[in-house]
Amino acid sequence: MRNFVFNIRTKVHFGKNSIKKLSQELGKHGSKVMLIYGQSIKKNGVYLEVINSLEGFSITEYSGVCPNPEIETVRKALKIARSSAVDMILAVGGGSVIDCAKAVAAGYYYDDDPWDLVLSPGEIARALPVAVVLTTFGTGSEVNGNAVISNAAEMKKIGMYSAYLVPHVAVMDPAYTCSLPAKVTAAGIADGLSHGVESYFAKDEDAFVQDRIAEGVIKTYIQYGISALREPDNYAARANLMWAGAIGLSGLTTLGRTSAWSCHPIEHEISARYPLAHGEGMAILLPQWLRYIINDATGNKFAEYAGNVWHVPYDENRNKMANLAVEKMEKFFEAGKLPKRLKDVGIGAEHIEEMAEEAVKNGFLAFAYVPLNKQDVIEILKMCL
Amino acid sequence: MRNFVFNIRTKVHFGKNSIKKLSQELGKHGSKVMLIYGQSIKKNGVYLEVINSLEGFSITEYSGVCPNPEIETVRKALKIARSSAVDMILAVGGGSVIDCAKAVAAGYYYDDDPWDLVLSPGEIARALPVAVVLTTFGTGSEVNGNAVISNAAEMKKIGMYSAYLVPHVAVMDPAYTCSLPAKVTAAGIADGLSHGVESYFAKDEDAFVQDRIAEGVIKTYIQYGISALREPDNYAARANLMWAGAIGLSGLTTLGRTSAWSCHPIEHEISARYPLAHGEGMAILLPQWLRYIINDATGNKFAEYAGNVWHVPYDENRNKMANLAVEKMEKFFEAGKLPKRLKDVGIGAEHIEEMAEEAVKNGFLAFAYVPLNKQDVIEILKMCL
Repeated sequence: MRNFVFNIRTKVHFGKNSIKKLSQELGKHGSKVMLIYGQSIKKNGVYLEVINSLEGFSITEYSGVCPNPEIETVRKALKIARSSAVDMILAVGGGSVIDCAKAVAAGYYYDDDPWDLVLSPGEIARALPVAVVLTTFGTGSEVNGNAVISNAAEMKKIGMYSAYLVPHVAVMDPAYTCSLPAKVTAAGIADGLSHGVESYFAKDEDAFVQDRIAEGVIKTYIQYGISALREPDNYAARANLMWAGAIGLSGLTTLGRTSAWSCHPIEHEISARYPLAHGEGMAILLPQWLRYIINDATGNKFAEYAGNVWHVPYDENRNKMANLAVEKMEKFFEAGKLPKRLKDVGIGAEHIEEMAEEAVKNGFLAFAYVPLNKQDVIEILKMCL
Repeated sequence: MRNFVFNIRTKVHFGKNSIKKLSQELGKHGSKVMLIYGQSIKKNGVYLEVINSLEGFSITEYSGVCPNPEIETVRKALKIARSSAVDMILAVGGGSVIDCAKAVAAGYYYDDDPWDLVLSPGEIARALPVAVVLTTFGTGSEVNGNAVISNAAEMKKIGMYSAYLVPHVAVMDPAYTCSLPAKVTAAGIADGLSHGVESYFAKDEDAFVQDRIAEGVIKTYIQYGISALREPDNYAARANLMWAGAIGLSGLTTLGRTSAWSCHPIEHEISARYPLAHGEGMAILLPQWLRYIINDATGNKFAEYAGNVWHVPYDENRNKMANLAVEKMEKFFEAGKLPKRLKDVGIGAEHIEEMAEEAVKNGFLAFAYVPLNKQDVIEILKMCL
């Protein structure tokens, strides 16, 4: 196990009606709140709950953050934040809204274009406090310093990290996720599950505790994913999916290891170019990437994964165990009505070369569990067609 | 899943030579450090490493904290802390030293006897910052606000909790545990494993993520426990045991549930009266308590535990699965040369009635997974004779 620093700074209020704890937490940071949100919260009642809980605060609103948040959106929100001299940013939504809020929080104390900070997050030396009211699940952005920001003009989608961007508080009420459209729930399941898998297939194989936690995250999505789709109001399912989402990107599964993730950077290239939900992209990529890296060197890890997570019976032929595990995952995604191929979402081969090149570069895929070069990524993307 | 607040405030520096991070962390709280420790750190070189890392700090020492720390020790250390007007407490050791340091930190701002705070920790409104250099594993006290303090005069050993007692920083270098005597390593294994089991057998059965993490903790002790005993310098084993110890009492396994723990309060009554390591007491109690609560209502939970943790093959007869799992645990403890019966550590039936009565009262055993009354505890203790 490699040396690590463990420091989850987010305070989480988890459960029904946790919104009641919000104003007390925000009060620690001042009285002028910038509220950032997307489309859905005015439809599902969360907007009203948030506004009602902010009595006594001065609120500046920025609405309409879209999936795969754009640097242009960050720039616009930043102007408004500055003109109101806000004390903090409150993100009400899912990963896209939270990531946008983080970029605004970082940009607030930076005089130049915030895209610089996306490219060089080490430059971030200060940020406005970020608070979150989570309305989806699977993102994990509510408990870490990661943000993914797109730049349509440059066809880029870049993941950034800074300790300054870790939310100070997250209100996580699973009941808020009951009204999510099935498609969004399914994408959250694929995304949350993929965080477990990407952490699991890592170098430094003696991170045993971390692997068991990653297995727990994956198993939670398997256990409750289809229930949540069939019975959207199943609170136990919603609560477990939401909590597994936070655990899966809290750092607990990746501490003490070094590998770069493999699939996320490839997916970012896809959704930088096509209007695809990140989780849907992950559902397409994950099985094909896993198939591509099955070999003698990865056999033991795959056997462990297949047995512990998918209950594949032990077999001396580890390739067989590995392939069975991948098939079971594909069937699981099918049951969730997630897309299986790029063509299912209208994507062809037109950008494959370019996406492969960018993914290798932006995602440091030479340092992945099984190192991937441009040709490897082209092969994986072709398998996804 | 019940509502919960998640807030791990300890910053952990984990790995070889993490001691180098100590002075920077302590500097945030002032310059006058009270160093509290036990017996071993002057023998294994840790004392010197700590002192060398504290250049520029004013150090007040209190040495000689014994296992099952006494309120009388707390009182003595408290006087010294006050006369030096220290800014913080640095605990260098295992659970006993950390717990003692926490009680001193709480007592510092309290005018009356610190035993009052052990009995009524809700009275704690302020405490000195506590920092930890961990030299054992399995305790978990390095990342939580719990402390267990004994009162020999009253034959009491009481667990207390306050959010003010959560250490601000913990330096966890697994190499420090390589020189632990086999007996101490074995006791740490039994203690760490028992934290997983006590969390697991809880009401609120839909805390699925938490259960998987608890299983991960237990499996880590099974995976690496005997290796650490056979090859004391096995770093991977030491690192996993140490990290599982922190995870197991970080709250991650107990969030969203309500049950009082069953075995710990009973063990506390034993080691309040006899010179027994807490982990050894747990190794004796845990199997017999589990046997005692096997019944139709607990069958499903036991089957899950037996299959997931001990790889007991599925059987329609759940009692059979449960008993096999308990036997496997006993064999594991035997392999670690842990005591199996109270008579192995020279304890007879003389205090059974009184211990049972106190355990039910002090441990709120009416609210345990399977509620236990005095007669139940007497039966369990008799099974341990």
